[in-house]
Amino acid sequence: MKNNSAHRSILIVGSVALDDIDGPFGLHPDLLGGSASFIARAASYFTRDVAVVAVVGDDFPARHLDEMSVLGIDTSGIERKAGETFHWVGKYSADLASRETLDTRLGVFATFQPVLAPRHRKADLVFLGNIHPTIQLDVVEQAERPVLVALDTMNFWISGHRPELLKTLARVNTLLLNDEEARQLAEEHNLCRAAARILKMGPTSVVIKRGDAGALLFYPGGVFGVPALPLEDVRDPTGAGDSFAGGFMGYLAYAGDLEPRTIRTAMIVGSVMASFSVEQFSVDGLRGRSRDDIQARFDRFAELTHFERVTL
Amino acid sequence: MKNNSAHRSILIVGSVALDDIDGPFGLHPDLLGGSASFIARAASYFTRDVAVVAVVGDDFPARHLDEMSVLGIDTSGIERKAGETFHWVGKYSADLASRETLDTRLGVFATFQPVLAPRHRKADLVFLGNIHPTIQLDVVEQAERPVLVALDTMNFWISGHRPELLKTLARVNTLLLNDEEARQLAEEHNLCRAAARILKMGPTSVVIKRGDAGALLFYPGGVFGVPALPLEDVRDPTGAGDSFAGGFMGYLAYAGDLEPRTIRTAMIVGSVMASFSVEQFSVDGLRGRSRDDIQARFDRFAELTHFERVTL
Repeated sequence: MKNNSAHRSILIVGSVALDDIDGPFGLHPDLLGGSASFIARAASYFTRDVAVVAVVGDDFPARHLDEMSVLGIDTSGIERKAGETFHWVGKYSADLASRETLDTRLGVFATFQPVLAPRHRKADLVFLGNIHPTIQLDVVEQAERPVLVALDTMNFWISGHRPELLKTLARVNTLLLNDEEARQLAEEHNLCRAAARILKMGPTSVVIKRGDAGALLFYPGGVFGVPALPLEDVRDPTGAGDSFAGGFMGYLAYAGDLEPRTIRTAMIVGSVMASFSVEQFSVDGLRGRSRDDIQARFDRFAELTHFERVTL
Repeated sequence: MKNNSAHRSILIVGSVALDDIDGPFGLHPDLLGGSASFIARAASYFTRDVAVVAVVGDDFPARHLDEMSVLGIDTSGIERKAGETFHWVGKYSADLASRETLDTRLGVFATFQPVLAPRHRKADLVFLGNIHPTIQLDVVEQAERPVLVALDTMNFWISGHRPELLKTLARVNTLLLNDEEARQLAEEHNLCRAAARILKMGPTSVVIKRGDAGALLFYPGGVFGVPALPLEDVRDPTGAGDSFAGGFMGYLAYAGDLEPRTIRTAMIVGSVMASFSVEQFSVDGLRGRSRDDIQARFDRFAELTHFERVTL
């Protein structure tokens, strides 16, 4: 946010989608969704050098791309193809604690095969959204000199494409996933032992996202935990994890190093952006936040977690 | 632990029981259990003035009472009656994430009607374990000048004895309960709003215990959150919440004031004692901890949650 010569570039490869979200606040059709939409927007608060590589169909409203451009996000890697945009239809329970997928129409995303433009190959930080691990690996191999490769995945790839995922993980610095996915990947319920196993698969840090239970960061020799900020008004949890990832990556680009100290702070910035995201539908919670808004919420996390280090 | 003239006395009214625990580590029969057993033992590390009021049957091994006495716990209020000790039989799932009650034999606990001895009426801090809310209220009325009354309850009383529970809550300073109980009591899923409702029922602070998701403290004008310490070896979650309560109450007695700052630290001390408790069966995880052990684990919580307060 302040001028910082260490600002690094971020490349996000993932989905730009349309969501129909049903739940206690009624049906909201055709919302902007997809992991890259949330990640890029959250990250754009921390560095002006964010690029997205994705694919959309000919039904995708141009205004979403225009808005991203206004935020300084490089959308030149978002290809528009004939066909339908990836469309997810989900319904949340009355308490928002669970959700059900009613329909997934992959559309043009089904044949997504990213080819990076020369300047995208030079990105400092690369975030690989939740897509086929072989495609993720192909992107890693196109990147020329990333200082950090971060990856998200899901149960579908863990159970159905494990060998390919393990091959990709060997090339990844930071894995972000939720607790159930971590357990499934490690084949171990205990999160501490699960994280230790995952750290042997390649990543040097693992971020376990736990929804309203907060998030954990495991790295060799350390563990960091942050609770979620208790919020009075939660309207749409869609994209919370991606908003976390965007804040996390954005802060790493902004800070310019990858020390554990910096990654801890990135966990808080990720939590800040996730907390904004869930308060409104689609990316609305990430819209128009000022530097003061973000700092104020960062400070709320500081207040939330503060206790005196006493001698007993 | 250090000499502190502010040390206050704690009275714990609750269950002293025997548990049969089955699960991935095999059947462990006839373990010392009951809320007061965990609370008193955890609290005894922080003040020498801990008394228990409870009832046991003639099958209760004398060694458990002897052990408590050796720790300085006043067991004169533990009545021994003809009949069976409260006996709980539970089975944990393979991952310890859930449990099933196979049998509950109340025995002499069914007619537990605590009458406080004169010195117990003078306790500074009173902890009311999970018993009928009318009995809890009766104990409150016997206490002469408590600076803090803390209370635990459960779904059974919330759903079946709500009017009595609300009457008791009006006399309570601190309510400790788990997240599902908080939601049930407040008739509100959102924990932030649930806590706000509970704070209107009487308590000036609410502690929401969330197992491996940590704990939250709500008080007027503030909220504090602490993650659970990720542990490699968890053997028996029984008594974790009670060990938390014991550390929490013990630290408040030790610190000698009830400022939000002090209650925050008490949340960490509670988390420390809970983390010890789950590593072994029954109260074994709370046995023989040194001052250095407790300080070291407190420091691990400090390390777990530490991040730099940055200006973005």
